Amino acid sequence: MPELIFPLDSTKSFTEQAKVGHNRWHPEIPPVATVKPGDSFRVHCREWFDGAIRNDDSAEDILNAPLNRVHALSGPFAVEGAEPGDLLIVDILDMGPIPDEDSGPLAGQGWGYTGIFAKKNGGGFLTDQFPDAYKAIWDFSGQTATSRHIPAVSFVGIPHIGLMGTAPSHELLAKWNARERALIETDPNRVPPLALPPEPDGAILGGVPESEFDRVAREAARTAPPRENGGNQDIKNLTIGTRVFYPVFVPGANLSLGDLHFSQGDGEITFCGAIEMGGFVDLHVDLIKGGMEKYHVGENTIFMPGRTAPQYSEWLAFSGVSVTLDGEQRYLDPYLSYQRACLHAINYLTTFGYTPEQAYLLLGAAPIEGRLSGVVDIPNACATVYIPTAIFDFDVRPGSGTPYRIPEGTNVPHASAG
Amino acid sequence: MPELIFPLDSTKSFTEQAKVGHNRWHPEIPPVATVKPGDSFRVHCREWFDGAIRNDDSAEDILNAPLNRVHALSGPFAVEGAEPGDLLIVDILDMGPIPDEDSGPLAGQGWGYTGIFAKKNGGGFLTDQFPDAYKAIWDFSGQTATSRHIPAVSFVGIPHIGLMGTAPSHELLAKWNARERALIETDPNRVPPLALPPEPDGAILGGVPESEFDRVAREAARTAPPRENGGNQDIKNLTIGTRVFYPVFVPGANLSLGDLHFSQGDGEITFCGAIEMGGFVDLHVDLIKGGMEKYHVGENTIFMPGRTAPQYSEWLAFSGVSVTLDGEQRYLDPYLSYQRACLHAINYLTTFGYTPEQAYLLLGAAPIEGRLSGVVDIPNACATVYIPTAIFDFDVRPGSGTPYRIPEGTNVPHASAG
Amino acid sequence: MPELIFPLDSTKSFTEQAKVGHNRWHPEIPPVATVKPGDSFRVHCREWFDGAIRNDDSAEDILNAPLNRVHALSGPFAVEGAEPGDLLIVDILDMGPIPDEDSGPLAGQGWGYTGIFAKKNGGGFLTDQFPDAYKAIWDFSGQTATSRHIPAVSFVGIPHIGLMGTAPSHELLAKWNARERALIETDPNRVPPLALPPEPDGAILGGVPESEFDRVAREAARTAPPRENGGNQDIKNLTIGTRVFYPVFVPGANLSLGDLHFSQGDGEITFCGAIEMGGFVDLHVDLIKGGMEKYHVGENTIFMPGRTAPQYSEWLAFSGVSVTLDGEQRYLDPYLSYQRACLHAINYLTTFGYTPEQAYLLLGAAPIEGRLSGVVDIPNACATVYIPTAIFDFDVRPGSGTPYRIPEGTNVPHASAG
Amino acid sequence: MPELIFPLDSTKSFTEQAKVGHNRWHPEIPPVATVKPGDSFRVHCREWFDGAIRNDDSAEDILNAPLNRVHALSGPFAVEGAEPGDLLIVDILDMGPIPDEDSGPLAGQGWGYTGIFAKKNGGGFLTDQFPDAYKAIWDFSGQTATSRHIPAVSFVGIPHIGLMGTAPSHELLAKWNARERALIETDPNRVPPLALPPEPDGAILGGVPESEFDRVAREAARTAPPRENGGNQDIKNLTIGTRVFYPVFVPGANLSLGDLHFSQGDGEITFCGAIEMGGFVDLHVDLIKGGMEKYHVGENTIFMPGRTAPQYSEWLAFSGVSVTLDGEQRYLDPYLSYQRACLHAINYLTTFGYTPEQAYLLLGAAPIEGRLSGVVDIPNACATVYIPTAIFDFDVRPGSGTPYRIPEGTNVPHASAG
Repeated sequence: MPELIFPLDSTKSFTEQAKVGHNRWHPEIPPVATVKPGDSFRVHCREWFDGAIRNDDSAEDILNAPLNRVHALSGPFAVEGAEPGDLLIVDILDMGPIPDEDSGPLAGQGWGYTGIFAKKNGGGFLTDQFPDAYKAIWDFSGQTATSRHIPAVSFVGIPHIGLMGTAPSHELLAKWNARERALIETDPNRVPPLALPPEPDGAILGGVPESEFDRVAREAARTAPPRENGGNQDIKNLTIGTRVFYPVFVPGANLSLGDLHFSQGDGEITFCGAIEMGGFVDLHVDLIKGGMEKYHVGENTIFMPGRTAPQYSEWLAFSGVSVTLDGEQRYLDPYLSYQRACLHAINYLTTFGYTPEQAYLLLGAAPIEGRLSGVVDIPNACATVYIPTAIFDFDVRPGSGTPYRIPEGTNVPHASAG
Repeated sequence: MPELIFPLDSTKSFTEQAKVGHNRWHPEIPPVATVKPGDSFRVHCREWFDGAIRNDDSAEDILNAPLNRVHALSGPFAVEGAEPGDLLIVDILDMGPIPDEDSGPLAGQGWGYTGIFAKKNGGGFLTDQFPDAYKAIWDFSGQTATSRHIPAVSFVGIPHIGLMGTAPSHELLAKWNARERALIETDPNRVPPLALPPEPDGAILGGVPESEFDRVAREAARTAPPRENGGNQDIKNLTIGTRVFYPVFVPGANLSLGDLHFSQGDGEITFCGAIEMGGFVDLHVDLIKGGMEKYHVGENTIFMPGRTAPQYSEWLAFSGVSVTLDGEQRYLDPYLSYQRACLHAINYLTTFGYTPEQAYLLLGAAPIEGRLSGVVDIPNACATVYIPTAIFDFDVRPGSGTPYRIPEGTNVPHASAG
Repeated sequence: MPELIFPLDSTKSFTEQAKVGHNRWHPEIPPVATVKPGDSFRVHCREWFDGAIRNDDSAEDILNAPLNRVHALSGPFAVEGAEPGDLLIVDILDMGPIPDEDSGPLAGQGWGYTGIFAKKNGGGFLTDQFPDAYKAIWDFSGQTATSRHIPAVSFVGIPHIGLMGTAPSHELLAKWNARERALIETDPNRVPPLALPPEPDGAILGGVPESEFDRVAREAARTAPPRENGGNQDIKNLTIGTRVFYPVFVPGANLSLGDLHFSQGDGEITFCGAIEMGGFVDLHVDLIKGGMEKYHVGENTIFMPGRTAPQYSEWLAFSGVSVTLDGEQRYLDPYLSYQRACLHAINYLTTFGYTPEQAYLLLGAAPIEGRLSGVVDIPNACATVYIPTAIFDFDVRPGSGTPYRIPEGTNVPHASAG
Repeated sequence: MPELIFPLDSTKSFTEQAKVGHNRWHPEIPPVATVKPGDSFRVHCREWFDGAIRNDDSAEDILNAPLNRVHALSGPFAVEGAEPGDLLIVDILDMGPIPDEDSGPLAGQGWGYTGIFAKKNGGGFLTDQFPDAYKAIWDFSGQTATSRHIPAVSFVGIPHIGLMGTAPSHELLAKWNARERALIETDPNRVPPLALPPEPDGAILGGVPESEFDRVAREAARTAPPRENGGNQDIKNLTIGTRVFYPVFVPGANLSLGDLHFSQGDGEITFCGAIEMGGFVDLHVDLIKGGMEKYHVGENTIFMPGRTAPQYSEWLAFSGVSVTLDGEQRYLDPYLSYQRACLHAINYLTTFGYTPEQAYLLLGAAPIEGRLSGVVDIPNACATVYIPTAIFDFDVRPGSGTPYRIPEGTNVPHASAG
């Protein structure tokens, strides 16, 4: 185990820890620790809602989840010698749920959750079809997840870091705020919103001095979207063995991370689609000096996935095109195409007795793949979703026989958005 | 070799063959042959432009490619007993370039091509950055492709059927025409167009009697987009060993296919991104009676990919978010995100001396993967493109050493759109 | 298709062809064609028994198979400039059954066979348990094989070249003959024999002049065993995309090949365990001058497997140790361990209603893997055999439910060794 | 984390622990704990030599390693309701080095070792070529191993349980002792010995009462070989996610385990070829009542490998046949063939500057594969060893360029056997 430079105590809240992290992006959040190129170190990460979601059979916690307080991030960690223009190499050496804590009230203590967020509190990919809040609890057995809310499935997780990124410069932050504000202003009252503006309420800013706190909180960017610095990319392949290259925008690079997932399908389609957990991450860092110019990288990450993602060789795949459910033709819209592909998969899974909510939550959490299969054949983009057949305890393939039916009587917790 | 029920003579044009196929969708195009459930059969397919693109070092043929005449499809093939509501099972038993014809003027005779279409003649995924016409010729050695126009790369192809589908019913055809016309009318003079309306000029309609030809040609849908019947999905995983399930909309199902590709990356991003070829396909068909209702399938294909796609275990991946090159924030737009990810990859590859056009054509043709990595983190969708590192003759990974440079002096054929 | 330099006419026997191959190893067999480094070319190959085994339901042909006449090899092909001490690079560009001949009396015309050879005529890996002759016929559908003699299984083949090698020098040939003769003399009347001495009866020697024929036939080595020159390695991974490096022992290298297999498990355990076929091979050759010394290669091949072997991700594996069925302890004998592991697999498969012969033939033909798992834990070597579960139409895994039973009434053809 | 039912304190020796394990097989060793079918539990395991091998640059510890004291096993664990004739299902949920102990004197505390044992103290697969003692120390970074003794290589480990098995019945134990004694008596003074008889010196027998200790110690079987009960199979695929089925020979099954490996190649060819470590294992157990008869399993394990073994897609493979280095022909001896294949690989690797000892130790530790490629082609068995090319920091493939040379000056610790 490399040196633990950001410990968390599971019995205390995120703001009561020895070292306090942050939940906004701002260049003035001071590093909590400094490492050298070539160093390895361990970081604890809190689950993104800091314990607000419980291991129970109610979805009220999802319905009322405090979105202003996410994501609980560990860091920033400064890297000695890093300067704007460098590429920061981050190797994910190891990661997993909270070590040696097999039970407890905090996601990561032997369990995790997937949520469908209500349309009025965050929404999600299929929020028009699923406007209420739902939840599934997953139990971990080694690398395998099962859920008491979704019978007859189990799968090997692909643990990954949902959110990791370098700090923005003041200039980059200003750019983010300007462009996102411009988008919001095109439809400021939309539910769910088009984007999230800076929000002082709930802001956690690490070691920002009190004198600067209010200003920084008003300027600091929310952590929901991925941006030039990496951020909340929710790429399921940022797993053990993966090497990520981050652009450096401030001296020291100031790397932060959090939002660990036990597993997730491409797209994290239920918004909180992954199996959310707290846990640990072991990282190794290095620098390519001047790497941004050398490799023509202006923004966003480059990465090389690890070698130990779960291997499946049989997939059932569903396709969709960019026509709305009402029959309206859209132009090369893979977002819509992927919605339609996912809805096709959900409809298909009801054949076996799953409710649409169970199927939707499963697609968010299992290691499905989402592909941009065709993006040039006007006017229809074609998107595809691939489900590994081996995650089902039964034969899920279409055939001439009688389809299996799961035992009746289970469903996922539900909270009406009223 | 199963019985050849649709032969093509490479020395004759598509309309001069013993059996004439079609290049439009219409329920009244009569079957050229009838098969039984359980049958296996061989079909020849002409490359999608019926030979208009040549194995030379000019891109004039791409610039002036006759888009009204695509796609040259083999079929329709009726399946005995198929009725609307059934699912048609199609197994791709085998496929490949034109057998025993290793050289000649027709793509598929030992070679294929990838094209970047000019903005004024079709366009493509990155048409604003690449408004002119370009072409790359690929030579086949067994399952491997190399190009005299793009040095220092070679890759194992993933041969697949770009376009396969069942015939639409009159009702479904009417729906297509109505919704696509409505889209076109929102910006009828757009270049490239939003969609392609029925076009009698260049229509090939198989055995439609002369008396009905003009009417059918005015009604028949273009083959460019994928739709409810499958169609031009351009899914690179419709390869040998793959099983596809098609909704049946007319008695007999009336399956047609064409647009064979030697290889392609997810998205077929240059529009003619695949390595286009003519060739042969061996199919096996069967039926799931009443399968659409039984499995809750209303439209679009379901498929199970084969087991022999080329295996790579090291990938270099690029990510993009939905912010335009001009810095405008868009809302959850994975089309834009994938454009940005592909542009990042193209920029990166110029490090090694490739021109942007070489890199763009390579991404279209090689077995890259395009993923919908994040579709819920407002306002930014995150898309990723994965390139197998082993397709390069050199070490393509970022590092502290001096990057390799390809030999100078090669480039792809270019024709200015003027 | 590269130039066909060794054509075979399926209607004629191996010795009546335009170019006549050979079935013995000898440095004086003259090349039938000469190629240059960098050349690609096509070769036809006859199935190893030149048509003696038929597509029927009798095993008499296996019982009486003319072992003196194998293997029918295509070649030798001389490579310009090759000299002793070089490494010959052979890329397998493509291969498959006899093109365009889907039916007929010759294995490779849409079908192939697997045989259990009788103890008195060749024997096999488990000849003490299976002393009689048996046969299974396999039908090819694209890349998939099924057998009317072994129900409820189908698998994607891994076509490969069973036998390929360079010609031995006189010195090397003399070494072979001396050491094999010495082995035979330790038990000259053993059934099956310990090794096969040179045998003029049935010898085919290509263009060896009549004046030298008898002498060469008396000297020439049999083709059964793999040796320093590669030869009958029966490595299932010598498939499409594979690169093999051969030591060169004579000027021109003089490469020969044959014994094509549609599929095979590691070990080819029934002796004729592969699915035998005739067919075509496309090769590309090159040289590493002085490569044997440069890379410290004195003998035997090095190879790099291709990327398109069928992918399976679920395996049922059986282990065995080096104790005989009678309970006698042997010392680190992985041959015995693998026999025991295979017998365990055969016993297991009888659970589902297979006869031992069906199971044995299946293990020879399907893409199973055989591993040397432990070779140091005295006194027991541990060998393991891995069977892909997806080749069965039913759930083959052990569990608490009732095992599936295959339909009764099928078995494999049998001929008693009397 | 499931309940820890067998804890080990790294600061104390194996016999001073709260619960004491064992290092011999005997039915009378009482269970240290009892679990129920369906239970999950955690077990600590000591490295096989209980700390005798140190993280230093001397091989004296290997030369004098106390073979009488291996393997330090955790258990036995009784399973409620298990009876002779059942199959015990063991799922490996998770495993790894000693948790939270990144440094220290015990293998598993952030490091592990591979040893070549001297011919006079254990020997190994190539003991005639390597009669002295050698050692390599490996450092763990997450799932990756590197060694200061073997430059320019790193690889993702495949952690696995080297030794796991159920207790033998008295009858089975008597059979083992009889057959192994018979083997020893054929050459009682052989060095290394043919097998290891019961040896009271160094025996650890858990809770066997003092009154019975001497008798049991004289009867109890050594743990070196794999046998009917599983045991020291050293199968590298008994990794996370793997399900193993064990025959049950005594009431309660009495499962024991140990000899954890961070990584290993097929064969564990240097005898102590794996990267040895102590660590933890999480298991889940269940029963198939009467499973031995139901599935025709008389002995030895069946297993289904997990899904997360490191994925490599490029391999360099070496072949060998059963001819001795002195040129003597042996009959179908894959042990010899695998020796020759491994020696070919070792010779090849010296091209790059590795010493033979470095290459040999690397083949033992890295995730190489060893295949029984041909076992019927008299008189030569063909064995093959596959090395993943990506474990090298340089291009290890044969070619026309100048081979890379590793930096001079490193070698592995050596202790002369005198």
